[in-house]
Amino acid sequence: SSPMDSHDEGRKKFVEFPYASAPVRSLMFDLVSTVENRLDSQLLPCALPPDVQYYENQSGTAQASLQIRSGLKSSPIDFILGSWIHSELPTGGALNITSLSAYLNSSTDAPNFLIELIQSSPTSLFLILDLPPRKDLVLHPDYLQTFYESTQLDKQRQMLEKVPEASPYFSSSLYIRCVVSPTAIMIRVETETGESTRMEEIITSYVDPVAKEVIGIWLNQCACGGREIGESDRADLEKRDGLMKKKTIEVDLGTSFPRLFGPEVAGRVLGEIQKVFTAKDTELFS
Amino acid sequence: SSPMDSHDEGRKKFVEFPYASAPVRSLMFDLVSTVENRLDSQLLPCALPPDVQYYENQSGTAQASLQIRSGLKSSPIDFILGSWIHSELPTGGALNITSLSAYLNSSTDAPNFLIELIQSSPTSLFLILDLPPRKDLVLHPDYLQTFYESTQLDKQRQMLEKVPEASPYFSSSLYIRCVVSPTAIMIRVETETGESTRMEEIITSYVDPVAKEVIGIWLNQCACGGREIGESDRADLEKRDGLMKKKTIEVDLGTSFPRLFGPEVAGRVLGEIQKVFTAKDTELFS
Repeated sequence: SSPMDSHDEGRKKFVEFPYASAPVRSLMFDLVSTVENRLDSQLLPCALPPDVQYYENQSGTAQASLQIRSGLKSSPIDFILGSWIHSELPTGGALNITSLSAYLNSSTDAPNFLIELIQSSPTSLFLILDLPPRKDLVLHPDYLQTFYESTQLDKQRQMLEKVPEASPYFSSSLYIRCVVSPTAIMIRVETETGESTRMEEIITSYVDPVAKEVIGIWLNQCACGGREIGESDRADLEKRDGLMKKKTIEVDLGTSFPRLFGPEVAGRVLGEIQKVFTAKDTELFS
Repeated sequence: SSPMDSHDEGRKKFVEFPYASAPVRSLMFDLVSTVENRLDSQLLPCALPPDVQYYENQSGTAQASLQIRSGLKSSPIDFILGSWIHSELPTGGALNITSLSAYLNSSTDAPNFLIELIQSSPTSLFLILDLPPRKDLVLHPDYLQTFYESTQLDKQRQMLEKVPEASPYFSSSLYIRCVVSPTAIMIRVETETGESTRMEEIITSYVDPVAKEVIGIWLNQCACGGREIGESDRADLEKRDGLMKKKTIEVDLGTSFPRLFGPEVAGRVLGEIQKVFTAKDTELFS
């Protein structure tokens, strides 16, 4: 098959979100569409090998889809990464992770975007939704003001805080806690056993509109905000971005991937992610 | 009276914590004693004017005590600041704030110490307990490892998380959320109306031992950890420390002090705090 065919196929499998619940599928499809409609002209097609765009473990109990689209050199987008992972659990249920993240390059210091939904049962949800900052906010209160205070991002967090079944969630990784912003939404939602209808209602009525509001803020203020920085500030930014991406792979994927997919598949997929994460803007098309 | 008399008098009023509940008074007295016993030889006596060491508002409905002891030039201590504030509330109750913070100077980059207890009724408590970092933790994972992972500080946070009446507390100031570490304890404890006995039990059995563990870690690993940094790194550290202190005054004291004590008293006290906060190590004894 031609590269275009395999691209189409990988993309098709990705946006199907075949294992997600209806409201998660609808939300993720809308988020991906919103980003692609707005940024399509700045994005290259996904160039991952077919066996990284879709992969399984040896026993066929775990499946996953991965799409990465790099930005054109003229764009502030470094890359957009979308993924879902499905894994049958020994207890009978299944683990479903769906995520979308967007990284900007060093032509701008505007924040990135991140959403991740983790469900280990129909009545349990972990949600991470944030615009992770790319500068030390203690040292740059003006940056805090621009992207977090003026945008009133905390109102979105407060909206979800009000859901009675939601409680704040603290990542077991201290590094992940450092990477997120002071308005990060990191919550755990638990509905009563058997109450998957209530979970779907919470996702549709609360998570969905909040996520769309946050991605709207990211698109308008960050991806298309036109905030450019000078050559001299880029080195610091690239150093921080680089470290953050390296540590994020280590912490977030480095341990769970081998466990879910075995060392061989995990190695192949992580290797491709690493290539994108460590590619420098200047090297991409030179 | 001689300066020594007024110093003794101010200190005596401070450590009395006359308006705090018995378990808060006991905890704060122990923390102050622990710090002073360990660091006394490195600390100068409090040099604040008597009317800043103790002050009231015009109508006499609000009282406060403030003690600041600067460190000797040879010490890594910048200063230790202790304070209590008592203010009658129009509703009949009283607001009581007790705090102790310790700032290190730029001879070391080790974290500072902070504890603050805020009670607006005998059944309500806000607690902030942390070793605020002095570097951008995203850029310095080794620093995160040394002071937060190796010390297992998060275990202390988890201990308080388990108290059924406690819930995480998000400061309304995004800047304050940025200043604290990923293991910061920021909780709100609410016991049932009339249940001040249960609140006292929570403070004695949970808050007290955790606070003592945290100050022990700070004394051993930070204040007396012997981690010195080179001249070349000091400028960055001083810039970050300076900004952090400036913003902390603005956010934390700048609005509440004038409201509680009137503009004149607030101006006098804030002016003295500002002097200490903006004094550079090199200028202190030159």
